[in-house]
Amino acid sequence: MEIHAKQIRPDDQNRANRARMLISCPDGPGIVAAVSHFLHQHGANIVQSDQYTMDPSGGMFFMRIEFDLPQLESNLAKLEADFADVATRFEMEWSLSAVSRKKRLAIFVSKEDHCLVELLWQWQAGDLDADIALVVSNHLDMKNYVESFGIPYHHIPVTADTKKEAEQRQLEVIGNDVDVIILARYMQIISPTFIEHYRNRIINIHHSFLPAFVGGKPYAQAYNRGVKIIGATAHYVTEELDGGPIIEQDVQRVSHGDNVTELKRIGRTIERVVLARAVKWHVEDRVLVHENKTVVF
Amino acid sequence: MEIHAKQIRPDDQNRANRARMLISCPDGPGIVAAVSHFLHQHGANIVQSDQYTMDPSGGMFFMRIEFDLPQLESNLAKLEADFADVATRFEMEWSLSAVSRKKRLAIFVSKEDHCLVELLWQWQAGDLDADIALVVSNHLDMKNYVESFGIPYHHIPVTADTKKEAEQRQLEVIGNDVDVIILARYMQIISPTFIEHYRNRIINIHHSFLPAFVGGKPYAQAYNRGVKIIGATAHYVTEELDGGPIIEQDVQRVSHGDNVTELKRIGRTIERVVLARAVKWHVEDRVLVHENKTVVF
Amino acid sequence: MEIHAKQIRPDDQNRANRARMLISCPDGPGIVAAVSHFLHQHGANIVQSDQYTMDPSGGMFFMRIEFDLPQLESNLAKLEADFADVATRFEMEWSLSAVSRKKRLAIFVSKEDHCLVELLWQWQAGDLDADIALVVSNHLDMKNYVESFGIPYHHIPVTADTKKEAEQRQLEVIGNDVDVIILARYMQIISPTFIEHYRNRIINIHHSFLPAFVGGKPYAQAYNRGVKIIGATAHYVTEELDGGPIIEQDVQRVSHGDNVTELKRIGRTIERVVLARAVKWHVEDRVLVHENKTVVF
Amino acid sequence: MEIHAKQIRPDDQNRANRARMLISCPDGPGIVAAVSHFLHQHGANIVQSDQYTMDPSGGMFFMRIEFDLPQLESNLAKLEADFADVATRFEMEWSLSAVSRKKRLAIFVSKEDHCLVELLWQWQAGDLDADIALVVSNHLDMKNYVESFGIPYHHIPVTADTKKEAEQRQLEVIGNDVDVIILARYMQIISPTFIEHYRNRIINIHHSFLPAFVGGKPYAQAYNRGVKIIGATAHYVTEELDGGPIIEQDVQRVSHGDNVTELKRIGRTIERVVLARAVKWHVEDRVLVHENKTVVF
Repeated sequence: MEIHAKQIRPDDQNRANRARMLISCPDGPGIVAAVSHFLHQHGANIVQSDQYTMDPSGGMFFMRIEFDLPQLESNLAKLEADFADVATRFEMEWSLSAVSRKKRLAIFVSKEDHCLVELLWQWQAGDLDADIALVVSNHLDMKNYVESFGIPYHHIPVTADTKKEAEQRQLEVIGNDVDVIILARYMQIISPTFIEHYRNRIINIHHSFLPAFVGGKPYAQAYNRGVKIIGATAHYVTEELDGGPIIEQDVQRVSHGDNVTELKRIGRTIERVVLARAVKWHVEDRVLVHENKTVVF
Repeated sequence: MEIHAKQIRPDDQNRANRARMLISCPDGPGIVAAVSHFLHQHGANIVQSDQYTMDPSGGMFFMRIEFDLPQLESNLAKLEADFADVATRFEMEWSLSAVSRKKRLAIFVSKEDHCLVELLWQWQAGDLDADIALVVSNHLDMKNYVESFGIPYHHIPVTADTKKEAEQRQLEVIGNDVDVIILARYMQIISPTFIEHYRNRIINIHHSFLPAFVGGKPYAQAYNRGVKIIGATAHYVTEELDGGPIIEQDVQRVSHGDNVTELKRIGRTIERVVLARAVKWHVEDRVLVHENKTVVF
Repeated sequence: MEIHAKQIRPDDQNRANRARMLISCPDGPGIVAAVSHFLHQHGANIVQSDQYTMDPSGGMFFMRIEFDLPQLESNLAKLEADFADVATRFEMEWSLSAVSRKKRLAIFVSKEDHCLVELLWQWQAGDLDADIALVVSNHLDMKNYVESFGIPYHHIPVTADTKKEAEQRQLEVIGNDVDVIILARYMQIISPTFIEHYRNRIINIHHSFLPAFVGGKPYAQAYNRGVKIIGATAHYVTEELDGGPIIEQDVQRVSHGDNVTELKRIGRTIERVVLARAVKWHVEDRVLVHENKTVVF
Repeated sequence: MEIHAKQIRPDDQNRANRARMLISCPDGPGIVAAVSHFLHQHGANIVQSDQYTMDPSGGMFFMRIEFDLPQLESNLAKLEADFADVATRFEMEWSLSAVSRKKRLAIFVSKEDHCLVELLWQWQAGDLDADIALVVSNHLDMKNYVESFGIPYHHIPVTADTKKEAEQRQLEVIGNDVDVIILARYMQIISPTFIEHYRNRIINIHHSFLPAFVGGKPYAQAYNRGVKIIGATAHYVTEELDGGPIIEQDVQRVSHGDNVTELKRIGRTIERVVLARAVKWHVEDRVLVHENKTVVF
């Protein structure tokens, strides 16, 4: 079986000259004017712009701009260099990326396959605008399936004793060319050292509507508490287990008649949809992190 | 202003002879057959029946039956007496009530009025099939409004020092004729003694999707955690604060742009809808409690 | 009973100097730069900005800007006059309004009260940032209730024969000082002449998820079709019945067990929530109309 | 790649002796008593029972019973034969099936794969309790993918000229052993002759919340109408295009910013989830059809 992501999207001709800019800085007068003036002067046309001011007097300012720039490929470097002045003036953290330069994902998975299958399906359908660089797993279960898509599969077993070496091996196979790591029901805790390498670039799916049911067996916890709604949460991984910035959540109604098996079954669909949305938003540069929260444009 | 609940509902002629039965017992063969046979023999026609078996081998069995019985008023007492045999055989906890005998509510409120206003509106619109016997409040804010509906309003202030006397006074004004107490954003903790009087008959609305954000200021907690969905929970009050059996929950999507004030505003609509649903289900005998969970038919 | 809208909101001190600008124009390079530069030069600080480009090559451009301007009251007129240049350059349709200048509503109602009650409750709770100038009804049912809020109630009966005179009378009582008319389950068809006076300023609530079940008795239609979801739609009124630009819709799940009476009951809550949201968005200048569609920021 | 549906489910030991009964008949006294008495006498234990009376006076009565019967395999035939008496007495339409006897599906697909992929994934995960007998398509696109699951794939092209022969060929490959046909985005109209063979046993997914946007290109229609919510509908196929009994619907919120391409992308997830639910409910004997509506237990 040979399945590849569709290479041509209907709107691809629009994308060659499109770029995105993410900005976080202390709020103050003139930021939008300065940025939009800068872009206009450099010949860029803003096609989408979102902003959010946490608190008009003295809070943080966040902005996402999508713009078209003729001959982007040859002009982007100069634009980036020139913007440093503006950025310095307003103490900005910022990033700039060409839409045509797809983000590269590493997907980590254990035995449960639903989140991985969803990501592969969305990627193959052209809905996930990214490249899947590799899959890493502590099990062999999904090897044939993943390789049938032409994607490298790295089997790296993890035990309590070999955890450190396993993470070292994971970092090696990932290399320097991966933008974001997706924990698609990867059932191992990531060490602080590893997290530090990919600060705000590791996305996990937790199978409850956090902060309810932190920790293990959330569906059993939900059943025992008798909740009428279950959910799932996609978040960036931080040192605090299940405590990182939330990107997306969704829920579904359940009833007294749903036992733990049924909750898990319902939950699988929530999990895969929520994780896929969070990944899509991340690769489209829609998520900014500030302290322990996200701004999602 | 004189507003009263509409006395005549379009389907009221169907209701004079209608009754409901709630049954909980250990599961075993023949329960449905015995109950339905009993009702058939007594001339009753089942119009709705719901059941749930927690675990087919050795679990609990729950049932709600709605039936029509000609000349219900004169025949109900005998039906009830005769059913004791069936009930004993299967070790049933059970109750039987005529639909035409409306449940009587006592509503407790503090300063926030949205849940009370919703209940009064639904009652006045004929959507809440109950009588509102009285309103109790530790504040005077809603006195004129409640009395304009012809409903008695009892102002019973509560302080740390007078809590015990206040609860005694509350029990007196409630009397012996109230079926269920609704805490419609009543911001005082109820004592175990009081709870014992109305076991599984006090419904509280908590302004979060429990078990997330137990305790005070849930909207501030939600804002700080950066959740993407907020909710509300209606539950029976037990000795464990915010820990009683959940009757109903609902949620709404929020974004990074919603500050605490906005979360409260959104939350108010969730709270009043969730509480009203829970009250409606309770007065329609749709809720059975088993240990710390509910079965809602 | 004397209930008045709360006059002081917690964030009112922020509002005295806040204004909003709505812009529609053909897309082209430099619009955002020109507008934000203009505002910055005039001393305004943008606190929120949303934009949408229908099609980056040759489509329409829509923008909503919320900004703070010191001494707004004395400076707004000059800002408005100066902006004409920018507006002309980009062929803009635009409007500018001070947040502190509340929109004035006229609410039309017939016999069903739930939408009116919701608007009054949200207004009284301080959640609807508008003044309710008057209520117009072809029935007397809600007169006492409305007047108890201190709001004028105009009873203008409508028959097939008197429709023209009735509309004339309605226009007179409304006068020149009302910004938007809310049809809160007003069961009379509005004439094209009347609509012309308030183009894109009459909001109706239709009791189905349009375009399903256009016309009369949508809940009966929904029951007969056996849908599993019912809904409501708030839209601007145009000459085409139930065909105007949709502002907001929402839905709720129903089942085979819900008869028409029950669908209406469920629907009432959807209707009042959807209408209230649409009104809130309109009075907060969040809705732009282009041809037969809305942009809602 | 060899992927097969998981053969053992955690609760399979409970299933060998479980059966389900569906009943429709004119309502009248004693039905539940007669059925439950009959089952009890034959040694069956009811584990789940749902019923619905369309109108207590003179309407239709619908019932679904799930029961355990020791040595079901050897006892089911006798139970079925004996029940004829009860069925005749109450003029029942009824069916009885062993849970362990999985329904057999034929899936029809054209070029869009998302609904097929979802059904295969749910089947492979053990969530769809059925056998997939074969896939029929008028295109070759999904051949390799389907065969990799070990499922026969029949490529039967359809043109305006060959439609009749193609349907004849479809009926041949389906044979006599398929319980239900799933149109998983099969873009050909089914002839009345074909429908007659599988009355209430052909499930289609329509890509709008019917009855809105009947006919072709519903997402383009939705975009042009400017709706704020899109949906999908699973229904049984009847002679009236898009007019058959609705089994399930679901929706998702969209905004002015979603163009037709984006609506289709969002819609694909609604479609596959809605179709999968409808198929699940059908194969679990949860759906009864009466006239043009469904009862879903």
